[in-house]
Amino acid sequence: MTAMTDHPFDTDTRVAPVADHVYEATLTDRWTALGGVPNGGYLLAVCLQALSHDLPFPDPMVASASFLRPAATGPAEVHTETVRSGRRVATGESRLVQDGKETVRVVATFGDLAAANGRTEVHGGPPDLPPPDETIDLLGGGSLPGVSITERFDYRAAALPGWAQGRPTGDAELAFWMRFRGDREADPLALAAMVDAAAPAVLELGAQGSATMQLTVHVRGRPAPGWLACRAATRYVIGGYHEEDFEIWDADGRLVAQSRQFALLAG
Amino acid sequence: MTAMTDHPFDTDTRVAPVADHVYEATLTDRWTALGGVPNGGYLLAVCLQALSHDLPFPDPMVASASFLRPAATGPAEVHTETVRSGRRVATGESRLVQDGKETVRVVATFGDLAAANGRTEVHGGPPDLPPPDETIDLLGGGSLPGVSITERFDYRAAALPGWAQGRPTGDAELAFWMRFRGDREADPLALAAMVDAAAPAVLELGAQGSATMQLTVHVRGRPAPGWLACRAATRYVIGGYHEEDFEIWDADGRLVAQSRQFALLAG
Repeated sequence: MTAMTDHPFDTDTRVAPVADHVYEATLTDRWTALGGVPNGGYLLAVCLQALSHDLPFPDPMVASASFLRPAATGPAEVHTETVRSGRRVATGESRLVQDGKETVRVVATFGDLAAANGRTEVHGGPPDLPPPDETIDLLGGGSLPGVSITERFDYRAAALPGWAQGRPTGDAELAFWMRFRGDREADPLALAAMVDAAAPAVLELGAQGSATMQLTVHVRGRPAPGWLACRAATRYVIGGYHEEDFEIWDADGRLVAQSRQFALLAG
Repeated sequence: MTAMTDHPFDTDTRVAPVADHVYEATLTDRWTALGGVPNGGYLLAVCLQALSHDLPFPDPMVASASFLRPAATGPAEVHTETVRSGRRVATGESRLVQDGKETVRVVATFGDLAAANGRTEVHGGPPDLPPPDETIDLLGGGSLPGVSITERFDYRAAALPGWAQGRPTGDAELAFWMRFRGDREADPLALAAMVDAAAPAVLELGAQGSATMQLTVHVRGRPAPGWLACRAATRYVIGGYHEEDFEIWDADGRLVAQSRQFALLAG
């Protein structure tokens, strides 16, 4: 279900089969986090692209990524395995390898979100945000120096978050609008990347950053075109380790992705 | 860090090495869910037991399990792989195999929870429950027929949940005390099983049950002895798929485990 356009998300996550269950990829310098390393959500997207070649269903529904070592821009291989292919869903594993070392391991189950025709009962709603055209561009049309992933997305909210004004609020919750820059809408695979494509909520606790050890994302629907309303929150920092919960709601007000990270405070 | 006692949790999750990275296990009939199949948390515990032999750190800190097929009571093999062993944590994979078919795949990162000496900042607290001795035994000292895992734990709360009185509340939230029956306290490995060892919160929506597809658990601390305060909640049922969030707080009021499942409503 991933669009095959010339948008950087598509060109930079594209993989080419070179052998049975082996794909070649190139990690570009357009998705870097602090320190110049490729962002974890981007690495997850590359791993899911490879699985989408192997598995007979269109949508990643649940994916878990273990981040083993920092990745580097440049060539990479993705080694895949079909773990089980069933009638309704299929599960596979991807291993991102650079210089013979595994950097990320992903286990993901794909299905067909359009065929999810069971009961719907939603207790909760999107974050309380003004309409996008009544908000400010959090990057002022620019980006954070050295953090190239911030050139790939627009982020909007009613006001700059406290941490960006040098006054962390002490409450690790963020709400904002988000979408790709350039002419590309989100799809399920992009959602899996976007849950890791914003500043971590722990910046509001005065933290300098956070290293993701594990990320699990549930994709709950194919998003409608337009802005996505996002909510990020960390409630429990214990001994330096913390979760971050992330939700993405589409322009029709439907929950389309939900994730939780396990991470370690930096600095 | 798992106690080696004669308590059923220890005897029934024990694994014996039979070859390099291959362990034998026996799935007993003492941990079954509805339908007589072994409970997912029990299967996860067996997989983690095998990894605890391979990895040089005592505590499972984050574990993700993909449930591929129903398991059956009887013999099983656990095939393990050390994915990365680092200075502070180590990551491994376990595959539970029966009759040549993989039923569960687990990726887990082990570390030393006693060495987690970073910052602590907790926004939230345990569920609001009366002291255990002012609550009622939800099983009246008995168990649910055919659900043998209910013979392994005691559950206490102020009152029977709505679903158990034939009147689902419509609000998929449950809070209760929980502990092993018999003389055994919980430890990190047991917590990983216990997040899946209670009735699903969606019973309060009138659902007949739920099949777990994926479970990710974060173990945040070694629990103090005594009763554990648990909170289970489902907010988003969409097309039949839903998350279930679960928290376990120890007798000292500290969060010790947090999990999220991805599951499909049954019936």
